[in-house]
Amino acid sequence: MMNRIFLIMLIIGVPLSVIGGLLHFPTILMFIIYCLTIVALASFMGRATESLTLVVGPRVGGLLNATFGNAVELIISIFSLKAGLIGVVLASLTGSVIGNLLLVGGLSFFIGGLKFKVQKFNVFDARHNSGLLMFAIIVAFVIPEMFSQNLTETKTMTLSVGIAIILILLYIAALLFKLVTHRGVYTKDADENVVTEEPEWSKGKAILILALATLVVAYISEKLVHTFETVGEQMGWTELFIGVIIVAIVGNAAEHASAVLMAFKNKMDVAVEIAVGSTLQVAMFVAPLLVLISLFFSQSMPLVFTVPEIIAMVTAVLLNIVISNDGESNWFEGATLVAAYLIMGIGFYLL
Amino acid sequence: MMNRIFLIMLIIGVPLSVIGGLLHFPTILMFIIYCLTIVALASFMGRATESLTLVVGPRVGGLLNATFGNAVELIISIFSLKAGLIGVVLASLTGSVIGNLLLVGGLSFFIGGLKFKVQKFNVFDARHNSGLLMFAIIVAFVIPEMFSQNLTETKTMTLSVGIAIILILLYIAALLFKLVTHRGVYTKDADENVVTEEPEWSKGKAILILALATLVVAYISEKLVHTFETVGEQMGWTELFIGVIIVAIVGNAAEHASAVLMAFKNKMDVAVEIAVGSTLQVAMFVAPLLVLISLFFSQSMPLVFTVPEIIAMVTAVLLNIVISNDGESNWFEGATLVAAYLIMGIGFYLL
Amino acid sequence: MMNRIFLIMLIIGVPLSVIGGLLHFPTILMFIIYCLTIVALASFMGRATESLTLVVGPRVGGLLNATFGNAVELIISIFSLKAGLIGVVLASLTGSVIGNLLLVGGLSFFIGGLKFKVQKFNVFDARHNSGLLMFAIIVAFVIPEMFSQNLTETKTMTLSVGIAIILILLYIAALLFKLVTHRGVYTKDADENVVTEEPEWSKGKAILILALATLVVAYISEKLVHTFETVGEQMGWTELFIGVIIVAIVGNAAEHASAVLMAFKNKMDVAVEIAVGSTLQVAMFVAPLLVLISLFFSQSMPLVFTVPEIIAMVTAVLLNIVISNDGESNWFEGATLVAAYLIMGIGFYLL
Repeated sequence: MMNRIFLIMLIIGVPLSVIGGLLHFPTILMFIIYCLTIVALASFMGRATESLTLVVGPRVGGLLNATFGNAVELIISIFSLKAGLIGVVLASLTGSVIGNLLLVGGLSFFIGGLKFKVQKFNVFDARHNSGLLMFAIIVAFVIPEMFSQNLTETKTMTLSVGIAIILILLYIAALLFKLVTHRGVYTKDADENVVTEEPEWSKGKAILILALATLVVAYISEKLVHTFETVGEQMGWTELFIGVIIVAIVGNAAEHASAVLMAFKNKMDVAVEIAVGSTLQVAMFVAPLLVLISLFFSQSMPLVFTVPEIIAMVTAVLLNIVISNDGESNWFEGATLVAAYLIMGIGFYLL
Repeated sequence: MMNRIFLIMLIIGVPLSVIGGLLHFPTILMFIIYCLTIVALASFMGRATESLTLVVGPRVGGLLNATFGNAVELIISIFSLKAGLIGVVLASLTGSVIGNLLLVGGLSFFIGGLKFKVQKFNVFDARHNSGLLMFAIIVAFVIPEMFSQNLTETKTMTLSVGIAIILILLYIAALLFKLVTHRGVYTKDADENVVTEEPEWSKGKAILILALATLVVAYISEKLVHTFETVGEQMGWTELFIGVIIVAIVGNAAEHASAVLMAFKNKMDVAVEIAVGSTLQVAMFVAPLLVLISLFFSQSMPLVFTVPEIIAMVTAVLLNIVISNDGESNWFEGATLVAAYLIMGIGFYLL
Repeated sequence: MMNRIFLIMLIIGVPLSVIGGLLHFPTILMFIIYCLTIVALASFMGRATESLTLVVGPRVGGLLNATFGNAVELIISIFSLKAGLIGVVLASLTGSVIGNLLLVGGLSFFIGGLKFKVQKFNVFDARHNSGLLMFAIIVAFVIPEMFSQNLTETKTMTLSVGIAIILILLYIAALLFKLVTHRGVYTKDADENVVTEEPEWSKGKAILILALATLVVAYISEKLVHTFETVGEQMGWTELFIGVIIVAIVGNAAEHASAVLMAFKNKMDVAVEIAVGSTLQVAMFVAPLLVLISLFFSQSMPLVFTVPEIIAMVTAVLLNIVISNDGESNWFEGATLVAAYLIMGIGFYLL
């Protein structure tokens, strides 16, 4: 059902994106069309990645997921970097982190909790994720934030590049840990479950769809980025609000939907993996990669967020850790996470 | 025994409060009389609420407790707001939070721990409370603190009102969770214990005492508030110290006593509930309610604490969570909490 | 094997330290000689303390360890205080905290984890330590940091002295808790293990070695302190980097080695005790003692770290708590801790 809606959105959205651009439709209309089309494309990329994952086996599949899972966000960010919109990129990274931890995680817990009194998920994974969230957000993002106040711009950039390399290396180590050295150590029946699933598309079809969708996302992303300024002016939104709330929701909408669906089916391990795993991917792979990529552009991007951004991420991480560390969830825990997201949303709207 | 002392304090205190005011006794003397009388009145209100709770059953009773539990503090704060003493109100909210978490919690653990080697309490409740503490203090109080630095006064007030509404809604949701949807899910024999207790007073008597005591508290609170300035000058105390330490201890003294008593009887669930439950009530109900009430006064109160206040609350929450998250306590954990309170007390005294 | 290396280092290092000073060897060469000799001496002091511990029984032994465990660091710091290098002292305290928590703890987890898939340690001790880390770093160090911004210098010093006294009292209480009131409550076979070990040296020999080594460390420390300025200039290192990274590694090198060795032998309880126990000793005993000692010098030292120092310590504590709170470790958790140390190291180098 949901897949059909996305298909229709795609069939209408892609041509409209091209035509609208040529005929100079109003910017706000185009902004909405671009956003919806990207949401639909992201869902196709997600399904293609999932099919490939099943075909190639869990190890290479895990690697694939870890690389392509946030491809849409990466592409939008690269075009934003190219356009010199460093503030938007950092804001959308922030938005991904708090959106995944609080909104996706919260809605999953809430909606799953309306059906089931108590839902359980793997407590070892939860703790492993907690450690990485602490490392990535509280250490690797906070240190440059606070140190940069006493550093020159060049030194801040050196620090950022150093941290980016360490983050990516640890991200690779985490994959090694999860897929090779400690695969199955903390789970019981993971492998069996995986085997029984059938891929939706064949290997060739999946690769083709992934490649095509990526190209189209790139094309539309570039156009989307250039609407930000006008939309911000006309709607009274700041760059920060567009980045933290709008771009982050567009870039992650497909994931949001599937996490909530999984929670509703009581597959909490998958739901949590989407919410927290995606956060970790953004923080430990997408963000540092963008720092390194930015070195090739005219304006390089230090790993230095604004104070409101860093506070939002740090508090989101602490709240998420305390709530999910026991491997259980209920509707109220979900409501708490969503309430935290609302507070931050109001804050960024007013800034 | 303790009840008799409070009765004597009342019989002497109330007339003295009136007479002293008419005869213009020295301000410091009156300050002391007002404080002691309020402590005695608060104890009567506590007993009346408890009696009512037993009469009306656990659901309505929980609601009653959740509303009247910090009535004294609410009344003092409203009169402070009316007198334009916004700094004192925020300081006394801070004082309630750190006082309940560190002093009440710490003394309960310490004194209970002198008698029992290891005391246990419900680990699910502890985790539930940890999540709410994180939400209320680390998210809902820290966000306006940090965001307001880049906001106009009007926008800060808008953010404060938004957060206040969200806090109260989540507080109501928490009651719904605890009293309706998940009642008894995480406990074994709670209901049985409750049933066996006899209310101290009949329904009518309890309501009468509650109403009378509330009126008298209101009368004395107004007088108390107007002594702050003189007392501060004469004792060399700042507004901050009066709010954080003095008002908070006066407003919570009766609760302090009963929590420690419960710990001494090894009823740790009740002791923890008083300490942490009361904190949550202040943070999620009293504080936001005061923000909303302040809209009707000449000076409205934003939910923006001073930096020392927010640091004290955040560190108190983190320490309390780490110490109580395992559902066990001993005298040393209590000593640690009290030591943290002493450090903060010295800090606020010197400020 | 390792002991023989330290012996050779000692036999060469001590005479060279004296001769080099008289013949005015290049400062950097002398800096290296001093550092290596102190590392060797520290190892002898460690072995002497350990022998004494076994002779005098666990209670007095625990007390001995708690007092002499960081003697080298204390001595270097006292000479630094005497030379007015308050910044270096605070930096080396910071370095001890993050070095022990992240580098020692991390290497132990990592190297132990290469040999064993999952290593376990006492979860009660881990939680006990977490509470104390929270108290010492997050409460006792952060409060003066934030409050001092609104305090005069005299009041900051008053607050520092008050906190120092509370820290030492709670440290003594912790020893009382561990060695007297709750000895063996949370462990099963601790006593039996202890009984079977043979002391390396007799009581008399151990005391002699301890006394001699302490004297020589004092002699060399004073010379070492006076090389900092020149070394900093010639190597392009800041006072902060010398204190946080170099002095801290020199002062703790012997402990580092033995913690990693213990982890490799799967004695994780001992490894964790060295890493975290040593941190607590620095934070709750060495640091406050230095504050009190500094009152007798011309320049007294407040307990106020720089912002980067406090941020490094706070994030190190939070990361360590989240990672070690479950009483289990693996190579990846070790890698995460070491990665955090690297990030901080780069940061302090650039400052």
